[in-house]
Amino acid sequence: MNNNAIGVFDSGVGGLTCVSELQKILPHEDIIYLGDTARIPYGTRSKETVFEYAKQDVAFFREHNVKMIIVACGTVSAVMMTYPIFNDGELSSGVLYPAVRAACDSTRNKRIGVIATSASIKSGGYGKAIREIIPDAKLVGKACPMFVPLVENGYTDRGNEVAKIIARDYLQVMIDEDVDTLIMGCTHYPLLRDIISDIMGEKVTLISPGAEAAKYALRTLSEKDMLTSNKQNGKLELYCTDSVELFTENVKTILGSDINGKIYRTVLK
Amino acid sequence: MNNNAIGVFDSGVGGLTCVSELQKILPHEDIIYLGDTARIPYGTRSKETVFEYAKQDVAFFREHNVKMIIVACGTVSAVMMTYPIFNDGELSSGVLYPAVRAACDSTRNKRIGVIATSASIKSGGYGKAIREIIPDAKLVGKACPMFVPLVENGYTDRGNEVAKIIARDYLQVMIDEDVDTLIMGCTHYPLLRDIISDIMGEKVTLISPGAEAAKYALRTLSEKDMLTSNKQNGKLELYCTDSVELFTENVKTILGSDINGKIYRTVLK
Repeated sequence: MNNNAIGVFDSGVGGLTCVSELQKILPHEDIIYLGDTARIPYGTRSKETVFEYAKQDVAFFREHNVKMIIVACGTVSAVMMTYPIFNDGELSSGVLYPAVRAACDSTRNKRIGVIATSASIKSGGYGKAIREIIPDAKLVGKACPMFVPLVENGYTDRGNEVAKIIARDYLQVMIDEDVDTLIMGCTHYPLLRDIISDIMGEKVTLISPGAEAAKYALRTLSEKDMLTSNKQNGKLELYCTDSVELFTENVKTILGSDINGKIYRTVLK
Repeated sequence: MNNNAIGVFDSGVGGLTCVSELQKILPHEDIIYLGDTARIPYGTRSKETVFEYAKQDVAFFREHNVKMIIVACGTVSAVMMTYPIFNDGELSSGVLYPAVRAACDSTRNKRIGVIATSASIKSGGYGKAIREIIPDAKLVGKACPMFVPLVENGYTDRGNEVAKIIARDYLQVMIDEDVDTLIMGCTHYPLLRDIISDIMGEKVTLISPGAEAAKYALRTLSEKDMLTSNKQNGKLELYCTDSVELFTENVKTILGSDINGKIYRTVLK
């Protein structure tokens, strides 16, 4: 057993979709969350810049001595396939591999779609990971750069006309290409699940990267006998790099009004 | 006379609306432009974080020994009213005062609207500056956080349905409050001028902050006898903090396909 916390990071609040899943399936674990809100978004930046920021995010968790680091950011997860940020033996997970694994388990027609940030799509990481499991899979990738601003500004209701027009435009290629499984490759996107689901229809399986990464953490910590011996509910500590006030507003919309965790500001180096 | 360059900065490409105006009215001046693309957007961040970034932007121009620094970023211009970034005697201009001056000259009913980023509106800077000139003016402020993503992602055509819905939503309060002058308080917004103009109607005067700042620079440099003695067209050097490739694409959409300037990457400290 190991009673240290699990570290989870993202550029902003999107990665909290992973935290809320972790809290469901690993309720006794302490979690430390970092949102690099002074530099969000990552997904429209170059891979070199994403790499620099990600190294600083990881350094933060090394200082906090966590037992596992979850990269709850689709962009960093994709970029780190060519720019590794972890040392050998360091327990970690991105959202890319768990999501790809789930998609490959789900697909029947071997036609898998990925919607993600521009940086993720450009990285080519999803195609590489999918072909390792299903060599003749057809991957349809689509960058959706407006989805993060839509989520960060609350355009997420099922009936929101703006979000519906933008989503239909981005997703048309997925319908044309007949994908039966769609990876929402950015942890912000599950907050648009209703709208995406209405457009794609019931027959298409939607894969949520944060949820799959949480399941992967459960399996890994169990196998390595590193689950906590704590019997009470785990504590949640949240860190951001811009103002706590701004972050708190956004956190509430995802974790609900009762945040049940402490929020601090930190400086990354 | 002074043959040093004029420095212009913004978080991204929005400030180029000021550069293209400078090139029209001061064609012989050299211009150095900085876009802090590794950390765009500024307008959704806290004033403390904007202040930190702005200090680094200014330090960049001090190293380049420019004769005047134009803050072609509405957010920094608003925040620096309470967090000064310039030394006494340093020749500089934000976009706020020139825009406010033009708005106060234009208004007939003393009802002035300002659309800007969340950070600019929260700063209270526009109200303060307007009341210094017209003490009984009515200011209607509205944060438009989706406008920067719309511009950065090319949703700017007059007929764009998404941009029209979002703009109508933001601007309704300006119509309800009967403003006769509207300051587009973020240098990105003039790229949505057609859509904003269609909604506000011909009778409302739209103030473009980049253009007003360029006129202010012309007046100031003339008065101080600091115009260049150069008789050829001035040179343009562009710097960004993320990849040159990504920046070049965006610059083209604003300055036209013939950039006629050199683009470099720099690191701010």
